Amino acid sequence: MTRNANEYGERQRWFQETLRAAGLPGALLSSPISIRYLTGFTSSNSMLFAGASGSELFTDPRYALQIEGEAVADKKTVEGGVLLNAVAASLRRRRIRRLGFEGGHLSQESYQQVNEALEGRTELIPLGRDIERRRAVKSPSEIEAIRHAVAINSEAYERAMKRVKPGLLESELAAELDYQMRKLGAGAAAFDTIVASGAHSALPHARPRTVPIKANALLLVDMGAQARGYASDMTRMAWSGKPSRRAVKLYNAVLRSQLEAIHAIRPGVTASSVDLAARRVLESEGLAELFIHSTGHGLGLEIHEHPRIGKSEACELLPGMVVTVEPGVYVEGWGGIRIEDTVLVTGDGCEVLTPTSKELRVL
Amino acid sequence: MTRNANEYGERQRWFQETLRAAGLPGALLSSPISIRYLTGFTSSNSMLFAGASGSELFTDPRYALQIEGEAVADKKTVEGGVLLNAVAASLRRRRIRRLGFEGGHLSQESYQQVNEALEGRTELIPLGRDIERRRAVKSPSEIEAIRHAVAINSEAYERAMKRVKPGLLESELAAELDYQMRKLGAGAAAFDTIVASGAHSALPHARPRTVPIKANALLLVDMGAQARGYASDMTRMAWSGKPSRRAVKLYNAVLRSQLEAIHAIRPGVTASSVDLAARRVLESEGLAELFIHSTGHGLGLEIHEHPRIGKSEACELLPGMVVTVEPGVYVEGWGGIRIEDTVLVTGDGCEVLTPTSKELRVL
Repeated sequence: MTRNANEYGERQRWFQETLRAAGLPGALLSSPISIRYLTGFTSSNSMLFAGASGSELFTDPRYALQIEGEAVADKKTVEGGVLLNAVAASLRRRRIRRLGFEGGHLSQESYQQVNEALEGRTELIPLGRDIERRRAVKSPSEIEAIRHAVAINSEAYERAMKRVKPGLLESELAAELDYQMRKLGAGAAAFDTIVASGAHSALPHARPRTVPIKANALLLVDMGAQARGYASDMTRMAWSGKPSRRAVKLYNAVLRSQLEAIHAIRPGVTASSVDLAARRVLESEGLAELFIHSTGHGLGLEIHEHPRIGKSEACELLPGMVVTVEPGVYVEGWGGIRIEDTVLVTGDGCEVLTPTSKELRVL
Repeated sequence: MTRNANEYGERQRWFQETLRAAGLPGALLSSPISIRYLTGFTSSNSMLFAGASGSELFTDPRYALQIEGEAVADKKTVEGGVLLNAVAASLRRRRIRRLGFEGGHLSQESYQQVNEALEGRTELIPLGRDIERRRAVKSPSEIEAIRHAVAINSEAYERAMKRVKPGLLESELAAELDYQMRKLGAGAAAFDTIVASGAHSALPHARPRTVPIKANALLLVDMGAQARGYASDMTRMAWSGKPSRRAVKLYNAVLRSQLEAIHAIRPGVTASSVDLAARRVLESEGLAELFIHSTGHGLGLEIHEHPRIGKSEACELLPGMVVTVEPGVYVEGWGGIRIEDTVLVTGDGCEVLTPTSKELRVL
């Protein structure tokens, strides 16, 4: 058994314990990420039954070879036709009276279908957020994977930024960043890479346009690599030419806000207190209203995971959590400034994983 | 008003008619694709109320500038905090008694939350598949966008395949294909590009590996561009060196199967009859059991849309539908062969949009 298979086995045993504690003899998982986390199986069409008597993973014939090589499960069932029918037949045979399900993922329609297929003999109980909470705390091998994604991310940024020259389109720089990440071993970008110059950077989720990167203006790059299944996330700012006084002033305020938030990260503090640390700096500069999103978010198998580093997030940070810290200010008609690192919560504080310099880059 | 705004207005009026016919005074849409189709708004966090009295589109402050520039809706509401709270408050004010919702998209948990927020005064009715069915028939501007995506796709394939040389990794070719698509104007790849050489091509959804593309072996490339929001989809096969007799025999069988399926496409025939046409050819060659998926699928804003070209899909094809035709055979331990075009259903038959040659490419 490989080390990975051991990790999946461990997670499945943990999940069985969790179900037992909740008084559930089994659960039906439908979210691809939960299934990947518990079994290692990556497919667009699968369902997992996990119970005291073992697990059964269902998929369709397109994944017949992949499930054999990749998935860790006691039983693997490959069925043509509607997957839910095979799942329901197995559940009926198992005579499960109470079945957990992912209320935040299963659609109302699929919920009704499962309910009908089980012929009213099984009570469906929404699972809590146990899997999301466990996923938030990364194992050493997961942290290794995130470090790898972060390294690819930063190196690709350096390589691509060297190619910025007058006339380069936002969309071309985005393509270059993604290409460099892929050449360095990323399976994909972790999300749609953002390249926004000038006033367009005031849109926090700007999409790259087919317009040249402006001279004497802000350039915002927000990018992440997905490698070995895990994500990184980084935002850096540049200025082509000599930065304006306004840009320098706002940049320094955001940087101080970001550093204060990082400084606040250690085990036992709440996510909201980290958010507050970032917000206070911007408040003291009279910029609080320009900071229109949360300070950060967990990341791992997904680019946005528990915990959110936001105003009302009472979750306590724990060693092994990996989160982004990314305050920003956005001025309509002028532009936006955001600085973002991927940060690991350690035993006594935190480690900023992102190695890229946080000086305002002058192009 | 732009031409696009007209198209969105037209779609919203159609949806109002559809609701009226279903006896619904309004509907709450949660799927990003439905919202994009009806309003043009592309965001990761939005909900749309559409009713007889007009529409209201909800998003969070990150999209405040974008919603102004992009979305077509009677009312646009930007709210911090949990979006559902703002939506529910608006719905309560509107005193809607019966509210349609997307049962196939809204999670069971969100359904419960909406239900509670409406304080039991509103009956929630799952909408049918009207939007999906209308989306299946493309307007002239949508067909134009798909033609554009197809052109980028094929040109990127030509450019990238010229760079295949001994030692190139599967993952490097995939990165090159994606890079070329982006340089030609694609916003993204329409799905994770598949590059699979040798026996690995027997996995219909193979992921590119960091292994060199094999000499004297199959090379399968399955790729799509996403441009102006619309997708293309194409699969081509190559062989490095002189193809084996087995490869040529299987290739010709799959090609004949694909051509027969294309030949069967015209308005009024069922999707299943097209699937059957492909399947019959492979059956006559004794290969039916190696064809382990459907013959194709609709595509547009999403890479997989209604209608599925599958065994039990009774849907009739209509002019303006755009579908893939992609039979394949998969031999464990040897490899897989699939040939795929993007095809437009016309008034009296069909048009194969994909211009790339379907000869087995010899590298």
